[in-house]
Amino acid sequence: MRMRTRSHLDDRIKACENIMLENFNDAAREFSGSGPLHIEIGCGKGRFIAETAKRNPDIRYIAVEKVSNVMVLAMEKAVDAEVTNLRFMRGNFQILAESFPDKSVDRIYLNFSDPWPKKGYAKRRLTHGGFLEIYKRILKDDGEICFKTDNRELFDFSLESFPENGFSLSEVTFDLHNSDFEGNIMTEYEERFSQMGFPICRLVAKKGQ
Amino acid sequence: MRMRTRSHLDDRIKACENIMLENFNDAAREFSGSGPLHIEIGCGKGRFIAETAKRNPDIRYIAVEKVSNVMVLAMEKAVDAEVTNLRFMRGNFQILAESFPDKSVDRIYLNFSDPWPKKGYAKRRLTHGGFLEIYKRILKDDGEICFKTDNRELFDFSLESFPENGFSLSEVTFDLHNSDFEGNIMTEYEERFSQMGFPICRLVAKKGQ
Repeated sequence: MRMRTRSHLDDRIKACENIMLENFNDAAREFSGSGPLHIEIGCGKGRFIAETAKRNPDIRYIAVEKVSNVMVLAMEKAVDAEVTNLRFMRGNFQILAESFPDKSVDRIYLNFSDPWPKKGYAKRRLTHGGFLEIYKRILKDDGEICFKTDNRELFDFSLESFPENGFSLSEVTFDLHNSDFEGNIMTEYEERFSQMGFPICRLVAKKGQ
Repeated sequence: MRMRTRSHLDDRIKACENIMLENFNDAAREFSGSGPLHIEIGCGKGRFIAETAKRNPDIRYIAVEKVSNVMVLAMEKAVDAEVTNLRFMRGNFQILAESFPDKSVDRIYLNFSDPWPKKGYAKRRLTHGGFLEIYKRILKDDGEICFKTDNRELFDFSLESFPENGFSLSEVTFDLHNSDFEGNIMTEYEERFSQMGFPICRLVAKKGQ
């Protein structure tokens, strides 16, 4: 039964219930295992995280997404691709702050987050210091954040913001697709915008100095 | 006797002989002490390094400069300011590669290095991988490089180049003079160009990840 053809959102979400988590306690209970835990904040339609999870069966993944009718597409993708090491949580950043224990996460993915270009909204950028404090809390001591964006202003902002908040940058590129980086998995957005000629920026920020 | 009024270069250099080192062996012999060792590559007229050395009497400084009639101005500045913990070496980058032992240096300053903007000359940039390998060799394990430039292209190049070559970035700013950084000491060049409205970029690259 293909969920994708059904139109009613509640039914489609219900059909994916077994891969949805309410909070981190759910994860501890229903998503056991000893592998590293990687999360994506804002998984969108889920191509990146589904493909990443498929390629790394020993890692446990949690994708967080605030928009239900986007997240359902991601969940259906995971079901279709028979990915077993990926779970989903609906919610915004708050769910991380409230639900995730200290030092519980090995890696956080931030892909093409909203750039919030106006200065007055800088605090809403997911690489703003206020958010970085939370990431730092939930990341393990050797944890890291992998961040991609096509927005150069957001990238430059982040190049300053991560080190300011106690992260050190270990990989930086202003043109990922022409760099040495191997095994890049594109998001839907990334494919569209890189085809239009926009270079993709990427960095890895490690917790601690 | 003020050296500055004398015109003959050789005489002026000779008058500063006691603060000149031929090579690192000289440093070990004539510049003893147990304080950390910081070096500047390309000290120019020396304001930065003379002032930095003056403020940090427990640190030993070596300034390297390839142009004699520039270096003599720097040396005269050090003599005039009665800075006792600063020595000079004439030479280009080669002197580091040949003369400095492994893990002998705590910090390297690179200030406003030539940007070599043409792609074909990228290898001449002092933050190119070829140079970074040498810095890595002579730096102690917890050593670091402090890099300032007003050239955004060189800065962006360096933001990629340092992590690519095993350094991690712990401080990054695209506008040093409007950042939180305290105690900045301006070079002659920096003062002139920042007065003209050019923002100054700065990063700190730590050896190791």
